[in-house]
Amino acid sequence: MRNYLSIKDIDNLSEWVEEVKMLKIAPKKFKALGEGKTICLLFFNNSLRTRLSTQKAAINLGMEVMVMNFGSEGWALEYGDGTIMNQGKSEHVKEAAQVVSQFCDIMAIRAFAKLEDKEKDEAEEVLNGFAKYASIPIVNMESSTAHPLQALADAITLAENNSKIRPKVVLSWAPHPKALPHAVANSFVKMMQLQDADFVITHPEGYELNPEITKGCTIEHNQEKALENADFVYVKNWSSYADYGKVLNQDSNWMMTQEKLGKAKFMHCLPVRRNVVVEDAVLDSDQSLVIEQANNRTFSAQIVLKKILESIK
Amino acid sequence: MRNYLSIKDIDNLSEWVEEVKMLKIAPKKFKALGEGKTICLLFFNNSLRTRLSTQKAAINLGMEVMVMNFGSEGWALEYGDGTIMNQGKSEHVKEAAQVVSQFCDIMAIRAFAKLEDKEKDEAEEVLNGFAKYASIPIVNMESSTAHPLQALADAITLAENNSKIRPKVVLSWAPHPKALPHAVANSFVKMMQLQDADFVITHPEGYELNPEITKGCTIEHNQEKALENADFVYVKNWSSYADYGKVLNQDSNWMMTQEKLGKAKFMHCLPVRRNVVVEDAVLDSDQSLVIEQANNRTFSAQIVLKKILESIK
Amino acid sequence: MRNYLSIKDIDNLSEWVEEVKMLKIAPKKFKALGEGKTICLLFFNNSLRTRLSTQKAAINLGMEVMVMNFGSEGWALEYGDGTIMNQGKSEHVKEAAQVVSQFCDIMAIRAFAKLEDKEKDEAEEVLNGFAKYASIPIVNMESSTAHPLQALADAITLAENNSKIRPKVVLSWAPHPKALPHAVANSFVKMMQLQDADFVITHPEGYELNPEITKGCTIEHNQEKALENADFVYVKNWSSYADYGKVLNQDSNWMMTQEKLGKAKFMHCLPVRRNVVVEDAVLDSDQSLVIEQANNRTFSAQIVLKKILESIK
Repeated sequence: MRNYLSIKDIDNLSEWVEEVKMLKIAPKKFKALGEGKTICLLFFNNSLRTRLSTQKAAINLGMEVMVMNFGSEGWALEYGDGTIMNQGKSEHVKEAAQVVSQFCDIMAIRAFAKLEDKEKDEAEEVLNGFAKYASIPIVNMESSTAHPLQALADAITLAENNSKIRPKVVLSWAPHPKALPHAVANSFVKMMQLQDADFVITHPEGYELNPEITKGCTIEHNQEKALENADFVYVKNWSSYADYGKVLNQDSNWMMTQEKLGKAKFMHCLPVRRNVVVEDAVLDSDQSLVIEQANNRTFSAQIVLKKILESIK
Repeated sequence: MRNYLSIKDIDNLSEWVEEVKMLKIAPKKFKALGEGKTICLLFFNNSLRTRLSTQKAAINLGMEVMVMNFGSEGWALEYGDGTIMNQGKSEHVKEAAQVVSQFCDIMAIRAFAKLEDKEKDEAEEVLNGFAKYASIPIVNMESSTAHPLQALADAITLAENNSKIRPKVVLSWAPHPKALPHAVANSFVKMMQLQDADFVITHPEGYELNPEITKGCTIEHNQEKALENADFVYVKNWSSYADYGKVLNQDSNWMMTQEKLGKAKFMHCLPVRRNVVVEDAVLDSDQSLVIEQANNRTFSAQIVLKKILESIK
Repeated sequence: MRNYLSIKDIDNLSEWVEEVKMLKIAPKKFKALGEGKTICLLFFNNSLRTRLSTQKAAINLGMEVMVMNFGSEGWALEYGDGTIMNQGKSEHVKEAAQVVSQFCDIMAIRAFAKLEDKEKDEAEEVLNGFAKYASIPIVNMESSTAHPLQALADAITLAENNSKIRPKVVLSWAPHPKALPHAVANSFVKMMQLQDADFVITHPEGYELNPEITKGCTIEHNQEKALENADFVYVKNWSSYADYGKVLNQDSNWMMTQEKLGKAKFMHCLPVRRNVVVEDAVLDSDQSLVIEQANNRTFSAQIVLKKILESIK
């Protein structure tokens, strides 16, 4: 595998999930694979889980880790072609990507959607800019439109907690005071399309995700109906896609409650706003898988890095 | 030992100080103890000595270190129970503490007093919040009310420089333009209560420390009298405790001078404002132990981490 | 070698460049040299190449690396002698330098010129302050007036790409919207003075570098004439030295173009503003050596650290 930019880079999801089971039993078994190799984690946005889990995964694989907050520690980057750079940007991604490639073996990048301009966000200028000009593999630690390390961790968590041949999995929109990106939801949907499951997306009207991503998915605007007999409920806020980046409503009726959840398992990528997105009772119950999901971030990163290391050996 | 939150977590101070002598001779002797183990240092405030010495101690013990500035790199945390999180906080300490616990074996935390609300500071919401919800040991790298790694380094420094059976040790308040927390003074007082010494605290009226902490200590408002025949003088500013967080005076007569110090050894935790807290002549003299104290920060962290590693092996 | 503060600390440039060739073939050959040793990188300014390449060099030599953004993570430092520190500065460089010396074996420092006060910048208070009070070797990662790791990387790049006994090397000023320091140009000039080359400096009138540094160098204000038959053209902006720190003009006629460059190789330390300092066509051509220069930053740092490690073994 060259890059891990999106869910599409997973060649066989069920095989990866199987391999992770083995990694979790012996996390340091492949320490020799990364020895003498260095990964650079470039953050254009804040991070807790991704920052620590990706470091931990690299350490487990014997790699050296260099972490950099590109925004505050590096130089403002230009992404346009042919720009006369006489304004605020000091360096072009063409140089930055080639330069970072000199100092490490794998580069991981976090660069969120700005939610101001749909076309710009969908162009993924940071991630794709680095991927285009780098001479080393690139890992997506959440870009404008995708968070494939999270979705892979979610797939692992689902597999570990599922006992049915065809579970019912519901992705349910939740209210939130701030405009949030679509990346987590997008990658979760794409990942679910690789699974044998009864998958339903539920959200208020106006909160339709990118229709190209949800093509073929069941969408049900009645949350109660969507949640009937669910085995897993993945809760997540996102801003409007049609009215790009806007918060259309914060209707607290969409908050996940113990009553609505029934016997289903609860999933969320975190960070989560308690009693806005989901009530305390759910998070504090045994039905919540959120800490398992976080723990699986280490192993989703580790399987990805392992695949890449094997290909560049 | 589970956590190192305060001086009370030291089971036998003199034995620890003895053990440190051995660690200083062979700092890397216990490298195998930490192999494959990871420590995460979480900073909610600035740090120089603590940041570098704790890293160094962990490295000496063979551990991997992940450093994170929680304030600028992570998410704003909520600590209250049952809060409807629709304001500025994105994540609850319940999740944050459990999540960080997934990625490392020990967590160290720095979170200063805000000096705005005594009850809030004394509740130690950050340190205690993490300690309550984490599933791994927690080390206090200075909290609202305690700095036990500093006090342990001070105990080591005292032991290394003392030749008397019962030395006279004076903790002397000093002026400072800013309102500073009580953490260093508190932990120094608690540590001195475990020592056989003639211990005197001196400060202007109104600068009494928390009386529960200084219970049984000699307090002398006449600095000159307090300093008579002192062997060690520990100088430190703190803001008022009664009139919580206020700077009542900046009386430069309380600055430590060569003349006042006499033949005593001078101690301070650093950073120190020259010619405000203490005059140049003292810091530049052989009587100053401040650099030794800083050096002993490595070994106070190392003995703490060693004790914890031994208990989680 | 004790410190690496300026080009003058290179005892034999051609020998160092020869030794680098060997390091590039086997970058990890001297891993045992740095084992158990720690380097602390202190940044007072932003950095991409220096941050990553110096870390990488240290890792190649088996060292542990601690990185600290002194400005945002540490305490504001005072440098003056005898100052009454009752203003914004919390710690004196006397303490800071001695303290950091307790926690590592080598200290590397980046502290740019402020371009407000020539005397202050030339006093190099940060770099020299640390060098004066530290008890461990200091490496300059770009100071007010010098960037000797860059100039050493440039010497390596020149050597690798030169086939003539006496190449013509031109240092050409370029326009830039912001006032930039003289450090890179200064060190490049000093490094060229150790080479057998036809070396010419060209810039608009008013942009003369410090005459003590350029003493004996050919200075030609006609860029076209200067560039005639050049083998290597090093392009760099700097602000006025006489009218200290001022941007006197941004004349785009001084931008480097493919036409002006002719058959010469193009060099720049990066970051570079495309189509302001140099046109796209040059950077995107085979004549550009900028990525090789960046790559050689690892090896200039590595040879410097190797020399220091050999001297403190």
